Amino acid sequence: MTLTIDKVKELKEKPNPKQLGFGKYFTDHMFMMDYEREKGWFNPRIKPYEPLSLDPATMVFHYSQSVFEGLKAYRTEDDRVLLFRPEKNFERLNESNRRLSIPLVDNELILQYLKKLIEIEKEWIPKEEGTSLYIRPFIIPTDTNLRVAPANTYKLMIILSPVGSYYPEGIHPVSIYVEHEYTRAVKGGTGTAKTAGNYSAGYVAQEKAAQNGFAQVLWLDGMEKKYIEEVGSMNVFFRIDDEVVTPKLNGSILPGITRMSIIELLKSWGVPVKERLVSMEEIIEAYKNNRLKEAFGTGTAAVISPIGELNWHNEQYIINNKKTGELSKKLYETITSIQTGSMKDTFNWTEVVK
Amino acid sequence: MTLTIDKVKELKEKPNPKQLGFGKYFTDHMFMMDYEREKGWFNPRIKPYEPLSLDPATMVFHYSQSVFEGLKAYRTEDDRVLLFRPEKNFERLNESNRRLSIPLVDNELILQYLKKLIEIEKEWIPKEEGTSLYIRPFIIPTDTNLRVAPANTYKLMIILSPVGSYYPEGIHPVSIYVEHEYTRAVKGGTGTAKTAGNYSAGYVAQEKAAQNGFAQVLWLDGMEKKYIEEVGSMNVFFRIDDEVVTPKLNGSILPGITRMSIIELLKSWGVPVKERLVSMEEIIEAYKNNRLKEAFGTGTAAVISPIGELNWHNEQYIINNKKTGELSKKLYETITSIQTGSMKDTFNWTEVVK
Ligand SMILES: Cc1ncc(COP(=O)(O)O)c(C=O)c1O
Ligand SMILES: Cc1ncc(COP(=O)(O)O)c(C=O)c1O
Repeated sequence: MTLTIDKVKELKEKPNPKQLGFGKYFTDHMFMMDYEREKGWFNPRIKPYEPLSLDPATMVFHYSQSVFEGLKAYRTEDDRVLLFRPEKNFERLNESNRRLSIPLVDNELILQYLKKLIEIEKEWIPKEEGTSLYIRPFIIPTDTNLRVAPANTYKLMIILSPVGSYYPEGIHPVSIYVEHEYTRAVKGGTGTAKTAGNYSAGYVAQEKAAQNGFAQVLWLDGMEKKYIEEVGSMNVFFRIDDEVVTPKLNGSILPGITRMSIIELLKSWGVPVKERLVSMEEIIEAYKNNRLKEAFGTGTAAVISPIGELNWHNEQYIINNKKTGELSKKLYETITSIQTGSMKDTFNWTEVVK
Repeated sequence: MTLTIDKVKELKEKPNPKQLGFGKYFTDHMFMMDYEREKGWFNPRIKPYEPLSLDPATMVFHYSQSVFEGLKAYRTEDDRVLLFRPEKNFERLNESNRRLSIPLVDNELILQYLKKLIEIEKEWIPKEEGTSLYIRPFIIPTDTNLRVAPANTYKLMIILSPVGSYYPEGIHPVSIYVEHEYTRAVKGGTGTAKTAGNYSAGYVAQEKAAQNGFAQVLWLDGMEKKYIEEVGSMNVFFRIDDEVVTPKLNGSILPGITRMSIIELLKSWGVPVKERLVSMEEIIEAYKNNRLKEAFGTGTAAVISPIGELNWHNEQYIINNKKTGELSKKLYETITSIQTGSMKDTFNWTEVVK
């Protein structure tokens, strides 16, 4: 398959790098590729970023069947462009595809196309500290009929958005509401996949938490509301004494790439880290015994998001005096330094674009 | 709010009424209405059926947050047009909206707009037995940014599709696979809402069942895989001796309008009907004691879909010799006769369009 490239006539004005926010501005070009049952994936192309024209009966509006990924390109001091474990994102994309009955993609090939797109859009990667180019690959079904069944046609797209620092005022802990009414995901469901429906399903709980002054929701398992699963759209870790624990991938948790990297990093430092069932009761118990030292969420957007407070059944549990813990800080600094090339990447996690 | 009407210049050719299928053809016009946080719902309009132009960052592609409804308009012998309990569909639309953090609509007003649209498209309602005009209201978020949060802008649309008979060769029982690996929905999740993500989430199970020769999947509860919930996109009923049982609305089952009507109808006939927990084991027990007389799914598409066989853990359970049961038949005939105006509607379920 040859990639075709159709460049725009006129470039957009770039946004103010101090006011990027998240996912608001998009670059001049996008990647697109089509699927038809008889042809497989075909016609990979880089083209102007522009609206899609879709019949109102297009399946994506009715039954979702869409999956996505999220990763970032970072500009280094010496002006190189780095990707952080991008092959993991495209492997996960295929895992999501499998769960949603979407035809698998050639993930290595897509990564090549992505690199070409980034090369073309290099000027869009902001230079300011903490900024990056957010990369959003996504797949939608495009059949125009109302059958409740997997589509026969799809589009895979990649769009790019320069994004601001997650912590413009420095990394700081947030307050989290432990949700015991709504469920994010359950074994046998779609929790392990990055599929559209999982996200809007969490909005009511998220809004309720926000109205009460909480930054995010901590999700418990859907069966017993006993075991901890994730926090917002992040995986979650706890430091109890000098051991780190994180919920094991039990069939309803999204396997985060930051999560995976944190585990590998901790192991390389000799910090004991366990993936296992973690109950809310255990965390409260550790809290009461002064053994709960730190808690944090992990994800591509924030890398590390320290948790300063948990609210469970109207009780408030303040962690580490609402300060960023030592280990959280060290993890944050190490990962961001590797991502931006300011620290030697002994893990071989980063990939240079061109 | 005044409804504006913009008619097409040239009408489409109508499809062959013998080859309509389901949701393949759409009429000349559609209804559309917009929402903005500051304005509420505004600009209700009937306009030509045509593609939407949507930025690739439109929220619907990434986080779903879309809901829909499904109902039908029927042509009577004497050429009137009937809707079946349409107010229930728009009430349910608002329930779905609530669960997905979508702003509520004025459901009575929407019903008026729908009637106007159907009046304009009256020629599209097929006359053949078993055919009807399928009505698909749906709402999508239209913000163009990647924030994981409820949108500030939406579009509500209604599209219409002439559909063929569900039973071109007469009503007949199907074989059903009892799914014990995948989960459709769980308490605290989105199972009670008609939201896009629920449907594609079931595709892998549905495809696995289809590959093994089954028409549909029977879903068990997500917690214990013990209690029966729904069958495909239908509610489910069992006749045990002379009592009818159906799973109660426990927080993960879609409250079907056909289900509600069947219950009311049975009660009016003096047939005992119970909404309660129904375990798979109980059904097998009843089967073994020759007490399981009939089983059927219920929904707008099929009205009644008799179940001729259940497959559970590789055991085959044949119901009523794979023949349509007496009660199933009577229910099917009564409801379809009311819907098409050939039987007196003592329940006041139907509404005449114009
Ligand atoms: C539900 C959910 N959990 C966890 C994560 C963290 O995954 P990652 O570290 O790969 O960004 C994400 C975000 O990607 C997510 O959407
Ligand atoms: C999941 C699900 N269950 C049940 C039903 C049956 O509902 P109704 O009788 O209102 O068509 C439907 C279809 O509408 C459905 O999508």
